[in-house]
Amino acid sequence: MTADGASEALAASAARFAGRRCLVTGGLGFIGSNLALALAAGGARVAVLDALIASHGGNPHNLSGAAAPIEVVVADVADAARAAPLVRDADYVFNLAGQISHLDSMEDPLTDFDLNARAHLAFLETMRAQRSRAVVVYSSTRQLYGRPRYLPVDEEHPVQAVDVNGISQYAGEQFHLLYARVYGLRACSLRLTNVYGPRIRLSESRQGVFGVFLRRALDGQTITVYGDGAQIRDFLYVDDVCEALLRAALAPDAAGRVFNVGHHETLSLRTTAETLVRIAGSGRVELVPWPAERAAIDIGDFVSDFSAAERELGWRPRTAFADGVRATVSFFRRNREWYR
Amino acid sequence: MTADGASEALAASAARFAGRRCLVTGGLGFIGSNLALALAAGGARVAVLDALIASHGGNPHNLSGAAAPIEVVVADVADAARAAPLVRDADYVFNLAGQISHLDSMEDPLTDFDLNARAHLAFLETMRAQRSRAVVVYSSTRQLYGRPRYLPVDEEHPVQAVDVNGISQYAGEQFHLLYARVYGLRACSLRLTNVYGPRIRLSESRQGVFGVFLRRALDGQTITVYGDGAQIRDFLYVDDVCEALLRAALAPDAAGRVFNVGHHETLSLRTTAETLVRIAGSGRVELVPWPAERAAIDIGDFVSDFSAAERELGWRPRTAFADGVRATVSFFRRNREWYR
Repeated sequence: MTADGASEALAASAARFAGRRCLVTGGLGFIGSNLALALAAGGARVAVLDALIASHGGNPHNLSGAAAPIEVVVADVADAARAAPLVRDADYVFNLAGQISHLDSMEDPLTDFDLNARAHLAFLETMRAQRSRAVVVYSSTRQLYGRPRYLPVDEEHPVQAVDVNGISQYAGEQFHLLYARVYGLRACSLRLTNVYGPRIRLSESRQGVFGVFLRRALDGQTITVYGDGAQIRDFLYVDDVCEALLRAALAPDAAGRVFNVGHHETLSLRTTAETLVRIAGSGRVELVPWPAERAAIDIGDFVSDFSAAERELGWRPRTAFADGVRATVSFFRRNREWYR
Repeated sequence: MTADGASEALAASAARFAGRRCLVTGGLGFIGSNLALALAAGGARVAVLDALIASHGGNPHNLSGAAAPIEVVVADVADAARAAPLVRDADYVFNLAGQISHLDSMEDPLTDFDLNARAHLAFLETMRAQRSRAVVVYSSTRQLYGRPRYLPVDEEHPVQAVDVNGISQYAGEQFHLLYARVYGLRACSLRLTNVYGPRIRLSESRQGVFGVFLRRALDGQTITVYGDGAQIRDFLYVDDVCEALLRAALAPDAAGRVFNVGHHETLSLRTTAETLVRIAGSGRVELVPWPAERAAIDIGDFVSDFSAAERELGWRPRTAFADGVRATVSFFRRNREWYR
């Protein structure tokens, strides 16, 4: 199915939230904004809670063109005074706040830990204090698994973080599952593979290879790929991720569970870069030796086993990589001025 | 072997640290003070870094009777200014600071997380900034494993914390292992089973069953055991734990590793309580129904597989439970005034 098909499937899921109060934390960021826009288009009453930390991808332009007004509260999820009224009123909480830069997490580990772990614990305490009955979907990451011991990686794969970000995000996730077990919070976690699409952050080499590669391609520059670029990844188009988040929120038995969310189409980083250059019609690819600080946190190949999500959430990825890249390049060509 | 035998084995290990600079964090607490005293008796130059939070077991009397002067710095391990000179000078760091109360961690989760996870990340950053070459042994807990999926529990058993404390301690441990992998820190972690012995905290029902049971027995009161008291535990005498910490510090290939530290002698909580009453010569045992907040975090039986520590650290538990209890009761009878 094409990216348009994925958008239609996402719209159909979002329509099931019509009239419901949905809170999206991190809703000015990449995935959060796409989700908030889809929910607003589907008729949901959407509020966004976002600390608007520019270096983490928050960008007010990300919500431009919303089909209906979206309430935006600029605050950290740890800010109980600001979060309390939002969680008290919410039917659904999509908890996507956080920062995902591995290098940042090693250069400033305490900030990473505060944002990705401690802030979520504070947020859950706010939900508990408010006696929230909202369904919570937390966005976690396949980074938790570290360097895979086997492929594809299922949810039983041991956790072995390769950086501070992985330890932080694991703690953030586990707090959600603990509150589900102990307090009956209806929370689940999706461990997302590499996500790309419109509104991905382009402006720093901080947040995953796709944004870096895309910016270089759009600017007609050289994409540097480390080593032979043979490492395998499964990239996932953001509309597919948003559909997974919505399906998880509606699944009756998801509480307390973890689901991998990935793609059956796998490709090497070199092929990824070459596809971007081909579709953008600009840029070039160059193989360079591994920098030491990157090699230390490289995880080799990664392929996700997301059969639990297929079986229990009724979800599957819909967008072929080339189609998703076409939609992404088209978006950034149309909205170039927001993302410089 | 008796408790005296364990003390002799501990003294032999401690003598290998003669003249070396040893930092014990949490050294005013239960395990830390026993370790600091043993090291001082062995001729090490011992410093203690302890926040002296009374409710966590810190007690200046714990270091009374030291064989040599012990430098005591009252500060949190997260206090970089106070920690920096200590870690700069240390040959060995025994990182035992933290709080271990499961109920406290649920009632005040953010404080638990700060003390057991965030403070350790800050401490490791201080070690990195100081370019410390010290060997680090971190004291972790079998609580990380949660409700066992199989017995005995080895180090490959999945982690599934049942409370905030477990999530916090896991993060604290993983930071040590991460810094070992990425920065070459010579750090390892020991996952301790239920530890008891002289200087265990008696005064609150916060820190494990043994301290609660012992206080009731010494005071001639009723020990309440939940349910039928059939849950199995492996209790470990503190001198055996201290010997394991010292052997881990000296083991050439321990860096980056995790070792279970437990006991082959297993007994039910009911038998535990009855043994305490018999040896103390006071108190009685009563079975009562499970309180809900306790049942929610109970893990059932726990037995540790510590064969990796036997094989790679050359360590084994030496003290039979009844002997350890006799030594513990004798200590508290002699030092009653400090522990009221």
